[in-house]
Amino acid sequence: MPSKFRRIALIGKYQTIPSVEISNISRAVVEDVALFLARQGCEVVLDTDTSENLGLDHWPVLTPDEIGQQCDLCIAIGGDGTMLGIARQLARYGTPLIGINQGRVGFVTDLPLEGFQEQLAPMLHGTYDEDLRPLIHARVIRAGECIYEAHAVNDVVLSRGGLSGMLEIRMEVSGQFVSNQRADGLIIASPTGSTAYTLSVGGPIVHPATGGWVVAPIAPHKLSNRPLVLPDSSDIAVEVLGGRDMSASFDMLSFSSILLGDRLLVGRSTYSARFLHPKGWNYYAMLRNKLGWNEGGS
Amino acid sequence: MPSKFRRIALIGKYQTIPSVEISNISRAVVEDVALFLARQGCEVVLDTDTSENLGLDHWPVLTPDEIGQQCDLCIAIGGDGTMLGIARQLARYGTPLIGINQGRVGFVTDLPLEGFQEQLAPMLHGTYDEDLRPLIHARVIRAGECIYEAHAVNDVVLSRGGLSGMLEIRMEVSGQFVSNQRADGLIIASPTGSTAYTLSVGGPIVHPATGGWVVAPIAPHKLSNRPLVLPDSSDIAVEVLGGRDMSASFDMLSFSSILLGDRLLVGRSTYSARFLHPKGWNYYAMLRNKLGWNEGGS
Amino acid sequence: MPSKFRRIALIGKYQTIPSVEISNISRAVVEDVALFLARQGCEVVLDTDTSENLGLDHWPVLTPDEIGQQCDLCIAIGGDGTMLGIARQLARYGTPLIGINQGRVGFVTDLPLEGFQEQLAPMLHGTYDEDLRPLIHARVIRAGECIYEAHAVNDVVLSRGGLSGMLEIRMEVSGQFVSNQRADGLIIASPTGSTAYTLSVGGPIVHPATGGWVVAPIAPHKLSNRPLVLPDSSDIAVEVLGGRDMSASFDMLSFSSILLGDRLLVGRSTYSARFLHPKGWNYYAMLRNKLGWNEGGS
Amino acid sequence: MPSKFRRIALIGKYQTIPSVEISNISRAVVEDVALFLARQGCEVVLDTDTSENLGLDHWPVLTPDEIGQQCDLCIAIGGDGTMLGIARQLARYGTPLIGINQGRVGFVTDLPLEGFQEQLAPMLHGTYDEDLRPLIHARVIRAGECIYEAHAVNDVVLSRGGLSGMLEIRMEVSGQFVSNQRADGLIIASPTGSTAYTLSVGGPIVHPATGGWVVAPIAPHKLSNRPLVLPDSSDIAVEVLGGRDMSASFDMLSFSSILLGDRLLVGRSTYSARFLHPKGWNYYAMLRNKLGWNEGGS
Repeated sequence: MPSKFRRIALIGKYQTIPSVEISNISRAVVEDVALFLARQGCEVVLDTDTSENLGLDHWPVLTPDEIGQQCDLCIAIGGDGTMLGIARQLARYGTPLIGINQGRVGFVTDLPLEGFQEQLAPMLHGTYDEDLRPLIHARVIRAGECIYEAHAVNDVVLSRGGLSGMLEIRMEVSGQFVSNQRADGLIIASPTGSTAYTLSVGGPIVHPATGGWVVAPIAPHKLSNRPLVLPDSSDIAVEVLGGRDMSASFDMLSFSSILLGDRLLVGRSTYSARFLHPKGWNYYAMLRNKLGWNEGGS
Repeated sequence: MPSKFRRIALIGKYQTIPSVEISNISRAVVEDVALFLARQGCEVVLDTDTSENLGLDHWPVLTPDEIGQQCDLCIAIGGDGTMLGIARQLARYGTPLIGINQGRVGFVTDLPLEGFQEQLAPMLHGTYDEDLRPLIHARVIRAGECIYEAHAVNDVVLSRGGLSGMLEIRMEVSGQFVSNQRADGLIIASPTGSTAYTLSVGGPIVHPATGGWVVAPIAPHKLSNRPLVLPDSSDIAVEVLGGRDMSASFDMLSFSSILLGDRLLVGRSTYSARFLHPKGWNYYAMLRNKLGWNEGGS
Repeated sequence: MPSKFRRIALIGKYQTIPSVEISNISRAVVEDVALFLARQGCEVVLDTDTSENLGLDHWPVLTPDEIGQQCDLCIAIGGDGTMLGIARQLARYGTPLIGINQGRVGFVTDLPLEGFQEQLAPMLHGTYDEDLRPLIHARVIRAGECIYEAHAVNDVVLSRGGLSGMLEIRMEVSGQFVSNQRADGLIIASPTGSTAYTLSVGGPIVHPATGGWVVAPIAPHKLSNRPLVLPDSSDIAVEVLGGRDMSASFDMLSFSSILLGDRLLVGRSTYSARFLHPKGWNYYAMLRNKLGWNEGGS
Repeated sequence: MPSKFRRIALIGKYQTIPSVEISNISRAVVEDVALFLARQGCEVVLDTDTSENLGLDHWPVLTPDEIGQQCDLCIAIGGDGTMLGIARQLARYGTPLIGINQGRVGFVTDLPLEGFQEQLAPMLHGTYDEDLRPLIHARVIRAGECIYEAHAVNDVVLSRGGLSGMLEIRMEVSGQFVSNQRADGLIIASPTGSTAYTLSVGGPIVHPATGGWVVAPIAPHKLSNRPLVLPDSSDIAVEVLGGRDMSASFDMLSFSSILLGDRLLVGRSTYSARFLHPKGWNYYAMLRNKLGWNEGGS
């Protein structure tokens, strides 16, 4: 039986700080996966950066945008960060994604590297669970003009600089004033991002099917500035009234500096990330595993 | 212009512990509202208990069910508790509700008693904002049979007895195993209830349009047993594996004792509570006021 | 070399609910430890209840008070609960305690059952670290008279009944009014107890050498009612102003019912619990192990 | 009766960003206090910066160090920040401090500006409560050498840069390894600082007589990395293993940049801050006021 996905792109985690050992390991791993796919009758291409960084030059290469336009599937090899990075770029093309995790299995990267073939084979033949994750669309408005625009799978984070005091922000939701707050920052997270940064500042875990964003201050001055869950149809506008050396980050992968008076506008993207899981994948089993719910400790 | 609502029921807060002073105050208050409505050309009826408890015997009386069947509007005079109590009972009839608060304005009771006429008059003529709140439907299953069934506007709470140790529960959501937990109890709250009990155990504030329930353990043994937000289309099943003297409470207004092996099933009711607010009512303004976001302190 | 401790008492965990299997296992375990001590030249006695429950009738038996008066050391075999239970009773006699844990090593029971001999032998010869833990002394005052008095190693907990609403309490510290609070309850914990119940309601971990009590509300109505750490020289007085079916518990091992107007007085006991650890025992290593700080998850 | 304090220094809050209005207000205020003290027979001096910034050139001026050497009392006029700033500088001289608050009364600045004379007069005659607050002493060690040294009244904070990911730190306490942690930062706070920044990341409120530091991570990756309270006799060493653009701040008033491998050493200073309060000042009354414990909201 042929693969349901004819042309498949591979993207591997690569170190921004060069390291011979790490690259070598990844190189063999990416090569392994590529050969496995080729043996399944798939056409394999590599993401340009992956090819260059790992010195894997015997496979065709494509940029992320070309992957989105020309490939039927993208497989990310690394950790959740690798998967989120490419998911943001492919969202507009609707390209489905599978994650193979080099280390411990992640929140969205399900297939352990060891023995990946066994789980991947049936997925190639169409036996998988599809999991659409809502994407955040964010813009930074300065003096009435959009100076930055990005998508985020996990979260958009507004932060103070390391050497400065609290931010002062004014939040509006769908045109209604919510509150002025002073805090180290503000996180707006999707359900996918609710198990990441917001969890560490007291946010809830939000099931991906809920249709809500978490809006959580970082170290808020007022104890009553608790995490909110807002409908993902909301238009969230955050104006920066005070602070220095501020920035907005998008999945901690891209950044925009923020000046006083800038407005950060956040809403639901028209795109979604398309994650494919092995058949029978289970959100709660993943939480149990990642959060240690089934272990002995406190 | 005649009132849009022809027949209007009044329900007042009354003390379960008799108190001459409190009853007298409430009696005058209920009488005031009743006379105001009568002057607006409405037919006024009293809830049976309100009439009896306050000794107001010159208005027709109806039971809550009769109110639901025969009245166009119900006005609750008291606090949020009074409003929630009658909202649970009227939900199946779709009767709209307005809350007049004798004390400080509440989360759902918007009209301050002082000068209520000014805000109530336009509402009677059809100028109001309607606010549908999802209702929780809960059942207690023992040995395969439903032994208790209730609706809740705010929350369903599973608790240990005062003299016993932690509960042990097993939670499933829509047929999928979630986790075993040990805790003092578990709260399943609607968005309306998210500003009540769950807030005090670390739950988020969930906007009523979000379509999610908060599921939050009380004093969980494991630090990773964090509050969850689940789609309100979920079927939540909680089985009690350990504990003593347990109970389930529904809006803290009705109770069922719980034995080992009992299952608490929680889902979205087909009914909703219908709250009417003065035109221009604003959820975030209410939060600011109730949570002190606009005040000076920490 | 003879043991530094001539007469040693053993106390084992026994089930309040009889269970043949569990008792048998414990019986063999207690017998093992007893024989090991006898071989080291120690005189072995058993706690009366342990002897009866396990049917171990060939060793001399003593009540806890007699153990305190006549023994040089007490070894608790079970979990932290077993250790805390006997520590409360022996505190007035200054009897040192060693804990052998049948399951996973605990917060205060250091010696794993498997291979306990290796760690226990040098301790018997005087090679150990002594760890004095401050004890809580608590009294319940009703109408001016003390109606209940107890010591606690971990905590004193004031709780509402399972079917009732919040407690209302008024707290004074060393004669100064602190606050009125509404909550499900109040925990006053020693540093030893700071890793138990208070941790699950948001309390800090307090190092045993700190000299402070944690005072933490359970599900407080006000978000600003945060956990306090008070000097352990403080006299804490909690008066119960509202609530029903209330109780105070001491290490969750003994209980007193509480009526409206009762005052719970809490201070530092003149006694301390004396725990002996294997030489080189390390508080932080224990925390890392018990709280999973050295593991991979979130 | 003459003032117990012969020579008194005044320090006023001044804006780093010049503002005519604010300076004018402060100038009149400082002048008022100075004249009042002169009328009480005290010799009044101004802090050099206060004099320059406010253009008050008819009073003798001294630097903070000279104030410490030559004055019997220092009065800070402004908010808690002004008080903390001068307290750090005067601690080595043991100069007592009184705070007059221009705005809402603070955590350590007790005297409201309006009618300060009534509360200040008896204090000058020796009727006051003295309140010694332990001071933090911190050093930054790079390659074995101390490159920065500072005192802090509230807290020492290690932070990541605004555009970078989590810090990785390794903490030792008094020579014992505690844990490796990943977080946005780490706060080490005195009891005085426990009502400031650490409170907003979930730290407890620690009574000033407790003798403990709060060690609290900011947005920790692991949920079990909870706030610790350690004896203030502890030597806390934090080594920075990972991160970028890091810094350490001391009361948010002075800063040191931090490189990988730097060690931050924190312990108790031999100095204490000496705050004088009106007779009958009460720590808990201050908490009630500042945290809104006696107000109506949630």
